[in-house]
Amino acid sequence: MKYNFGAGPCILPQEVFKQAADAVIDFNGLSILEVSHRHKDFVAVMDEAIDLVKKALNVPAGYSVAFLQGGATLGFTISALNMMRDTKKAGYINTGTWASGAIKEAKKVGVDVQVFASSEDKNFNYIPKGFEIPTGVDYIHYTSNNTIYGTQFKDAPKTNLPLVCDMSSDIFSKEIQVSDFDLIYAGAQKNLGPAGATLYIVKDEVLGKSTSPFMPTYLDLKQQIDKESMLNTPPVFSVYVAMLNLRNLIANGGVKDMEQRNIAKANLLYQEIDANPLFKGAVATEDRSNMNVTFLLENESLNEQFDKMWKEAGIVGLPGHRSVGGYRASIYNALPLESVQVLVDVMKEFTKKNG
Amino acid sequence: MKYNFGAGPCILPQEVFKQAADAVIDFNGLSILEVSHRHKDFVAVMDEAIDLVKKALNVPAGYSVAFLQGGATLGFTISALNMMRDTKKAGYINTGTWASGAIKEAKKVGVDVQVFASSEDKNFNYIPKGFEIPTGVDYIHYTSNNTIYGTQFKDAPKTNLPLVCDMSSDIFSKEIQVSDFDLIYAGAQKNLGPAGATLYIVKDEVLGKSTSPFMPTYLDLKQQIDKESMLNTPPVFSVYVAMLNLRNLIANGGVKDMEQRNIAKANLLYQEIDANPLFKGAVATEDRSNMNVTFLLENESLNEQFDKMWKEAGIVGLPGHRSVGGYRASIYNALPLESVQVLVDVMKEFTKKNG
Repeated sequence: MKYNFGAGPCILPQEVFKQAADAVIDFNGLSILEVSHRHKDFVAVMDEAIDLVKKALNVPAGYSVAFLQGGATLGFTISALNMMRDTKKAGYINTGTWASGAIKEAKKVGVDVQVFASSEDKNFNYIPKGFEIPTGVDYIHYTSNNTIYGTQFKDAPKTNLPLVCDMSSDIFSKEIQVSDFDLIYAGAQKNLGPAGATLYIVKDEVLGKSTSPFMPTYLDLKQQIDKESMLNTPPVFSVYVAMLNLRNLIANGGVKDMEQRNIAKANLLYQEIDANPLFKGAVATEDRSNMNVTFLLENESLNEQFDKMWKEAGIVGLPGHRSVGGYRASIYNALPLESVQVLVDVMKEFTKKNG
Repeated sequence: MKYNFGAGPCILPQEVFKQAADAVIDFNGLSILEVSHRHKDFVAVMDEAIDLVKKALNVPAGYSVAFLQGGATLGFTISALNMMRDTKKAGYINTGTWASGAIKEAKKVGVDVQVFASSEDKNFNYIPKGFEIPTGVDYIHYTSNNTIYGTQFKDAPKTNLPLVCDMSSDIFSKEIQVSDFDLIYAGAQKNLGPAGATLYIVKDEVLGKSTSPFMPTYLDLKQQIDKESMLNTPPVFSVYVAMLNLRNLIANGGVKDMEQRNIAKANLLYQEIDANPLFKGAVATEDRSNMNVTFLLENESLNEQFDKMWKEAGIVGLPGHRSVGGYRASIYNALPLESVQVLVDVMKEFTKKNG
């Protein structure tokens, strides 16, 4: 038994793995890997996946859903290209590596980026607050959860401007108001499905309004939505597994119940981090992520001993991102509370030995 | 038993399906779907997949291989962006839907496209010949095999200019001289692996020489190659299955032996089409594809009867592309000769009844 705290690609429900493996052998008489994306059986999969996204997030009328490829990195470009309007200016919040990537890619396609809030001064260990949102820009962009640093926005910034969000690492983990956003995008490989698909939820009224002189067809959300994610061959297997996972989510109480379980998992782990004298959280308490729990040993010379213990307990994926060090327990939707308990027990045991 | 003549995503070897399904359950103790792309076990997969591509195609020194996303459609854009030089002009051969797509996308990113050869006058039922390749352009682009129409270049056009080829539907089906090309790209979902990965083979000396004012990081082959296909999360499962499939290819004699089997399959089917009075080939004889065999009934009022017969025989994926009609038997690498024999037997039986 392994307890997979990896940051993504990451754990999905065991039943989903089982169903996915079955379909690789037999999906209506063929392997899911050899089914034409134009076959009615796969068109039904794509339709169901899109419907389940809408159901899981209560996506209101006037929004469309698409599954593309390229991850959030291509999403940085796609969002900038599609949201660009007359001013060609946009306001970005910089909360870490991926937010910085979004800023860099927006600039590359000609957006005049105004970074109006940033936590770079403290190596992104908090979420900026009290910032003034610029006016006279085409849109506002932020990253809801910062996988690497372990910070998370508790609420969407309040603005009347079109709001764009990279939700790669917390979509489907908690309830959101889709109507707050003009565009949401998310790499699938956290709470949605395997790597290789990227989800877009877009307000219909923004489609086709880009002022970018440069718009390859693949990057044009209007054309992708018009073609129902079938502009070209979609990532068939990734979409299929995402559909299985969404079915599983909804069968288990949907995002609402999932959010409660995620809070319980996060509380269990953060309480131990705060109570245990050998450990400390890596980020501002009020900005802690319920998806990626980052923490450190007070005495880093003990790292090796701790590493030995959690590895022996069957835990994998606990080292922090190579750019920040320390530890990161990614406790995505599919990670059971029992796995968090295993980690907490290891921490307690470690402290008993070294405290 | 089904005989899958689908045009892609399409059949792969049955052993590959079995191994892929196993890995969805257990890849070194985790599901392949939950393994971090940064884990040494997956880095080893990516390295092996790249090495096997090089081995299978005898890729010479001075070339690099990458697995990206977005299919050939994004490849149209990526190839134009990366090959653009001082003239911003390029010569394209138009042999059908995908070649037309490449032309359209090159224009969208500012390439002055000269279509110097085309078979559009006869609805793309032949490969243009005797054309004069333009001089004073940055590169030449063509599509080696035309999946929809069923035509195929037997040899690469001779030119001293940088040559770019979309080989989506015939790569790994026959021996090629990689040194003829500056850039090869191919959607995986024919002879390489499942949908969701796109292969690039690029001459190192072309990297970083683009004159495009627009170059998102994801679309920059230099940065993708520098990051060894790990600029962001790659399509883990698609790359893994491609690696399995390449192992299988090489264990079965490599591309050289595969080419002989593909010729035998194509000959068997084309001989029946030519010998059988009720059928006719859809394209010029000398330009017939060894991957996608397109044919028609002389008397289309018999289509329904023929459709009934092949369906009863367990054949799937035989209808022609919706834009051309008729029939298309895609006889990719993994389709066994026995499946072609089943189709030929149905054709013979059909003719016995209706001849």
